[in-house]
Amino acid sequence: MDEVKIIEIKKSVFADNEQDADALRKELKGKGIYLLNLMSSPGSGKTTTLIGTINRIKDKIRVAVMEADIDSNVDAVKIKEATGIQSIQLHTGGMCHLDAEMTRQGLASLMLADTDLVILENVGNLVCPAEFDTGAVRNAMILSVPEGDDKPLKYPLMFSVCDLVLVNKTDVLPYFDFNLEKCRENVRMRNPMAQVIPICAKTGEGLDVFADWLLQEVKAWKNS
Amino acid sequence: MDEVKIIEIKKSVFADNEQDADALRKELKGKGIYLLNLMSSPGSGKTTTLIGTINRIKDKIRVAVMEADIDSNVDAVKIKEATGIQSIQLHTGGMCHLDAEMTRQGLASLMLADTDLVILENVGNLVCPAEFDTGAVRNAMILSVPEGDDKPLKYPLMFSVCDLVLVNKTDVLPYFDFNLEKCRENVRMRNPMAQVIPICAKTGEGLDVFADWLLQEVKAWKNS
Repeated sequence: MDEVKIIEIKKSVFADNEQDADALRKELKGKGIYLLNLMSSPGSGKTTTLIGTINRIKDKIRVAVMEADIDSNVDAVKIKEATGIQSIQLHTGGMCHLDAEMTRQGLASLMLADTDLVILENVGNLVCPAEFDTGAVRNAMILSVPEGDDKPLKYPLMFSVCDLVLVNKTDVLPYFDFNLEKCRENVRMRNPMAQVIPICAKTGEGLDVFADWLLQEVKAWKNS
Repeated sequence: MDEVKIIEIKKSVFADNEQDADALRKELKGKGIYLLNLMSSPGSGKTTTLIGTINRIKDKIRVAVMEADIDSNVDAVKIKEATGIQSIQLHTGGMCHLDAEMTRQGLASLMLADTDLVILENVGNLVCPAEFDTGAVRNAMILSVPEGDDKPLKYPLMFSVCDLVLVNKTDVLPYFDFNLEKCRENVRMRNPMAQVIPICAKTGEGLDVFADWLLQEVKAWKNS
């Protein structure tokens, strides 16, 4: 396995995370870097989705990934092996989310001068990560078909803070009681502005749409 | 829809949750009540598993369920409609876990004199609930096939505190890269004593085994 950097993140001491997140966003804007915060349940397919998507955009923009996990470095290694881009592992030391200061600790270990887009793969958790602004330009999340179309009812905050919902594992739709239209309705109830893109990371379905969304976002951010 | 009681849980103020959990376990022992804490990711099939299992044991022991969620009461209503047993909804007000005092608040709303087994369906989350002893006799969890066999590597604490791991949705094993033997190995690495039972809540496979485990556990607890 390729070696990847593992960063042990320390609990942050900032009293006002919102303020700190705004400051980080401004710093990144100054450097022309777009940060995406990607959240989901455990096992929804974040890493596989990233690999397929990064391979579609890495010749157009410079991408780096920070993989946050409580333990292990399997995801950062997978990303590095499958895409060749900058990939580091953030260990949260048992913590269930990342805030802006913790995100900043991770960014400090990347070669930011060589980067247009940094994707933060947050800890697999539909609850706590939604409560903390990481300093990202946008929040996106993956909801996978096996989890069910009722998740926006049960995890309201997560769906209301996300600008983009990727509905993953559409290849197994025939085997699950998952109604895509019902899902869209439930997402809209929490966030009328959220975009929903059905994808299948395994087959590649929909990844072009997500890749285009990312390219547009980064371009707009740089020009804004 | 049947009406179910919704309890708004308040944040607990106990300094020492471990001590409080031990006290709750003793109280429940005195009343002859077995409490099971069931945890998992969102959408792993906790509610469907409970319905199938409760219908297999409800004529032998008296069962009650507490459904913890951040919002909505869909699960408590489903359980009540499908099994007819006592079922209440606990709203955690955005909190990502339950501790012993919060569990006690829920128990206070059940008719405990009519109950042998209380199952607490914890908030769907593989991180925070593992950190808090609820006062349960045992912790159990569901890992569903679509989540992947690598979850014990990424969520070590959850797997080390659980005495039982139900591997759910075995009907979709052909469609996912999930190796049951690898999963068993990963679970054993975190907790050599944990029992692994493959189940399919949808088809009923394995639910007899889980039902027998519960009956044995309750019997042993009452006689201990």
